Amino acid sequence: MITTISDPDDPRIEGYHAVRERDLVGRHGRFIAEGEVVLSVLLQSDYEVESFLLSEKQIALAQHIRATKHNKTPIYIAAQSVMDRIVGFHIHRGILAIGKRPSTKSIDELLTGLPNNAVVLGLLGLCNHDNIGGIFRNAAAFGVDAIVMDEACCDPLYRKALRVSVGGVLKVPFSVVTNADDLASALKRHNFRMLALSPSGKTELETLTTEGRTALFLGSEGPGLPETFMANVETVSIKMQNAFDSLNVATTSGIALYQITKSLPSV
Amino acid sequence: MITTISDPDDPRIEGYHAVRERDLVGRHGRFIAEGEVVLSVLLQSDYEVESFLLSEKQIALAQHIRATKHNKTPIYIAAQSVMDRIVGFHIHRGILAIGKRPSTKSIDELLTGLPNNAVVLGLLGLCNHDNIGGIFRNAAAFGVDAIVMDEACCDPLYRKALRVSVGGVLKVPFSVVTNADDLASALKRHNFRMLALSPSGKTELETLTTEGRTALFLGSEGPGLPETFMANVETVSIKMQNAFDSLNVATTSGIALYQITKSLPSV
Repeated sequence: MITTISDPDDPRIEGYHAVRERDLVGRHGRFIAEGEVVLSVLLQSDYEVESFLLSEKQIALAQHIRATKHNKTPIYIAAQSVMDRIVGFHIHRGILAIGKRPSTKSIDELLTGLPNNAVVLGLLGLCNHDNIGGIFRNAAAFGVDAIVMDEACCDPLYRKALRVSVGGVLKVPFSVVTNADDLASALKRHNFRMLALSPSGKTELETLTTEGRTALFLGSEGPGLPETFMANVETVSIKMQNAFDSLNVATTSGIALYQITKSLPSV
Repeated sequence: MITTISDPDDPRIEGYHAVRERDLVGRHGRFIAEGEVVLSVLLQSDYEVESFLLSEKQIALAQHIRATKHNKTPIYIAAQSVMDRIVGFHIHRGILAIGKRPSTKSIDELLTGLPNNAVVLGLLGLCNHDNIGGIFRNAAAFGVDAIVMDEACCDPLYRKALRVSVGGVLKVPFSVVTNADDLASALKRHNFRMLALSPSGKTELETLTTEGRTALFLGSEGPGLPETFMANVETVSIKMQNAFDSLNVATTSGIALYQITKSLPSV
């Protein structure tokens, strides 16, 4: 169903109004996907889509969407100027969609049924959308089975995090748990070996051998992982030059996943 | 020399006016360093500093600077509100400095005298300041000896790139060359083995062994490295999951440097 919108106040596209302001107050079970790359991942994912809003120049994309499983989903087409007024800024590529958040999965539901050599990321207190997006991008690239987060982490389905992840957020299942302790006990229940990346970690990453289920924990760059948490897991460091032991947390996740997944036996 | 500034139009702090606008038009041989981390690297580097502009709350930092080799450099102190008006936006940490660009080093000057197991990054067409900054950060972390770039790359001393690099730009020597051909011929002249990272690279990174001088080339994420260039070097890929062969270029540099520097014999 393709509908042309000429009035920016048309109630059918209400969900696209003032995107940036709405980013801040939340969307009640919905999220915004923007741009060609994220949309392409969204179309292939199991996420439900509520509607699409495309600029006139994306009419070919509209036809393509009609040929997918989303052929019953409303597609709204607007002139670029109308679209920009709806959204509140210039949408260069003219591609937006509103997706529905799936019902929340408990961490036990998420971890049950993962393979015996599953790799899971545990994120604690990561509240920068670039970093969260970058970590999901790396997780998708290296085939991470799931990501578990504490409530201090920012929302991976936030528009910017989703964009930075180039859709990785829609590919890697995730679950949010109240705090680090609940997270750790759930992973132990499911027989995960617990590793925490830290500049002061005892084991050098390059000497690490992994087998079985592995959970890899990352904390924010400044404070890092809480000491009480670190005391109960194996700590791992990446060897660097003296006096500059400073990698971005998303880059750290990429390096650690590269090392861990290459030492895993092939499935 | 510590001087209090109360008039935002004081000619002595003219260089700090309208920082964002000036970012765009250039600074005639100068650059802006902002924040505690970058300033700390700047103070330890060989870069000349023209002046410092600090908010009143940074008086202890001003005293610290006077105790360094920069004790002859003007330090201007302003109330936060005056500082914000000078700069044109809120300078949260209240720390700025103007550094002087060193006279340009030719690539031959840069490469001469590097050790026999030197690792050099070659950057082609990277015009995103986050990526350039992230690459310099990783280069500093893994002890890269030098970075060489073509003219299509953006300026690493641009304020944002410098900030993202957490000062790495001030630690890793770099040189800019007109184009990829000049870059490649200089590296060959200096006996560098030439490797290029690409999703379609022939050698898998994890099987790579390096000895002697190594140059590692990175291109922008979309177009990648030019095919004519790739034809004349060894190409290397990072093994990823099917259908998501997509790592950010800065993350790619981190993974490749991790692998290459760990396989190098210790100096």
